[in-house]
Parts: sequence; structure tokens; C-alpha cells
Amino acid sequence: MRTLVLVFHPDLEGASRANKALVRAARELPDDTVTVRDVYALYPDGVIDVAAEQRLVEAHDRIVMEFPLYWYSAPALLKEWEDKVLAFGWAYGPGGEALAGKEIAVVTTAGGPESEYVEEDGGATMREVLSPYRMMARYTHAVWKEPFVVFESMELSDEALVTTGRKYQAFLTD
Amino acid sequence: MRTLVLVFHPDLEGASRANKALVRAARELPDDTVTVRDVYALYPDGVIDVAAEQRLVEAHDRIVMEFPLYWYSAPALLKEWEDKVLAFGWAYGPGGEALAGKEIAVVTTAGGPESEYVEEDGGATMREVLSPYRMMARYTHAVWKEPFVVFESMELSDEALVTTGRKYQAFLTD
Repeated sequence: MRTLVLVFHPDLEGASRANKALVRAARELPDDTVTVRDVYALYPDGVIDVAAEQRLVEAHDRIVMEFPLYWYSAPALLKEWEDKVLAFGWAYGPGGEALAGKEIAVVTTAGGPESEYVEEDGGATMREVLSPYRMMARYTHAVWKEPFVVFESMELSDEALVTTGRKYQAFLTD
Repeated sequence: MRTLVLVFHPDLEGASRANKALVRAARELPDDTVTVRDVYALYPDGVIDVAAEQRLVEAHDRIVMEFPLYWYSAPALLKEWEDKVLAFGWAYGPGGEALAGKEIAVVTTAGGPESEYVEEDGGATMREVLSPYRMMARYTHAVWKEPFVVFESMELSDEALVTTGRKYQAFLTD
């Protein structure tokens, strides 16, 4: 199982704390099983190399999309990645089977606690909030893996971040 | 009631058909009640004028986010708009009440039929898919208006597009 971790954080080396710890943990794993890419750093002007991204997806069995949850969704570049890379005739439509059978997983860090993600009083569960990604996986005939969610990501102690990193490594190599 | 229609279509004047018809209908409404902005055309490099966007939001009572549904979500620029314009201290946090009490509505065109948006067999309803926007409205203490959704948007006849445009006008002036 070869895993591609696509990290979408607009300031991973600067403002990020939780995602930086997750990326550090992922990068400790052997290169031949886990590939980690800081996508914002790769495309500072937002223009994605579609062919290169498609080749990378093709070369891996599991695609992990890692991002901080901003306004209940990923930062914009992940959406741009989806809209450009998941092309007609490649990800869907006639001959579009590039993702079929691959695993797709979302890894996200949320500032709020898990208790905020409830349906009561007009709220929404994390499952609902992440449903656009789940549906993308479904549409492309990929296998959806339950998301790895880090809640209260800005309040985690250094020790908690290390523990979370270990759990993330287990998630990535599962 | 002054309404701001923010249209997020990467090729509104080219590839769009349904959104173009919606925009045409919206532009027929009086300027002093409905302001229509083609946001992709305004920011071809994706760099949003945050202060200008904030002033426009402040000057309107209802914010309509119109977009084609790509991968169960808006094109990337809407997310960029949210992440930049809905700033701490303006849209949320201390003193962040710019959206409080304003109406927020989503208008979207989906290629698939309404019958595809069901929970059965691992699917998701349109309410679930659009939940990130609903939760954004909730978090900013805005008033969420039920979305205006055009299904099977690529199969609509010219006549159906005109009818839909009329309904959209009623939605925008309701």
C-alpha cells in the first residue's frame, strides 16, 4: 500500500501548529510507502501541474487529503486541485477510472471541540460537513476511509501533538 | 432589502449556460436593489480585494453566493473569498459582527437530478452537501435562507432557463 499525503495549508511552515506536527509525523514514515506533499508551497501562484498530480495519484493506492478546517471546508487550493486534477475522462466519465478502487481519506484539524459538531439547533455533524469529499470519493468509485479528525487543534499541548502524530502514523500505515 | 449576488463561475461568459441565464435574470432587476458581481472576472489572478468586498457586504442586507456545483462544492474562489473576506474581528471573534442579522443564501446549479441527492447507499442530501455554507452562516450569526437549487442544469431547454430565471428573480426580491 503506497500512500500519497497531499497537505493543503496556506502557511504550513509558519502559522500552522497541528498540521505541522502531523506532517512531521508523516515524513518520519518510509519514503517508499508514504509520499508527503505541501501543495501550497509547490504552487504559490495557485496554478496546479495537472499532469504531474495525476501521475502521482496513479502511482499510489491511497490518497490522503490533509488540511485545516476553515469555514467548515478545506482551504481553496484543495478545491482547485479537485476541479483541475479530477478531470473528465480521467477521474470520471468514459475511461475515467483513475481513482476507482483507491482509498481516499480526509485528515483535518478543527479549532472547535467535537461537541460543536452536532445536528441539534441547526448544527451539522463532521460527517455532514465533510460530505463533499465523501461524495467525491463515491462518484469516482474510490473507497472512502473514515476521516482522521483532530479537534481543538489550537489547544493541544506539545505532548498531545506527539501522541496525535503517532496515531496519524498508524492511520497512514493501516 | 439590498441584495448582493456574488457569482463564482470560472467561465461565466464562456462555458456556462445555466449560471449565465441566472445572472442575466438577476441583472434585469433594479440596480439599487440587486448588485451582481462576476467574482472570477474581477479577480483573474485569484487575489481578492478584501476591503472592497467587506464594504460591499456591509452595504447589503442579503448576500447570495451563486455557483455551479463542482465536486459537491463551489469552485475554489468562493472558498478563497470566505477565508480572506470573513476575517477575525470582522465576521467573527471580538467585534466581528459584520454578517450578524444579514441573510445568506446559496444558489447553485447541479448537473445531476434531485434524485441523486439521497442518503441511501452512502449518498448525501443537498442539505448535507451544502452544510459548510449553512454552518458558516450560523457561525457568523447570519440568517440562512433555503438554497435555490437548479438540478439537471445542463439539460434545461431555453424555455426552462427562462422560467428558472423568473423564479430566481422572485427568490432575489422575496
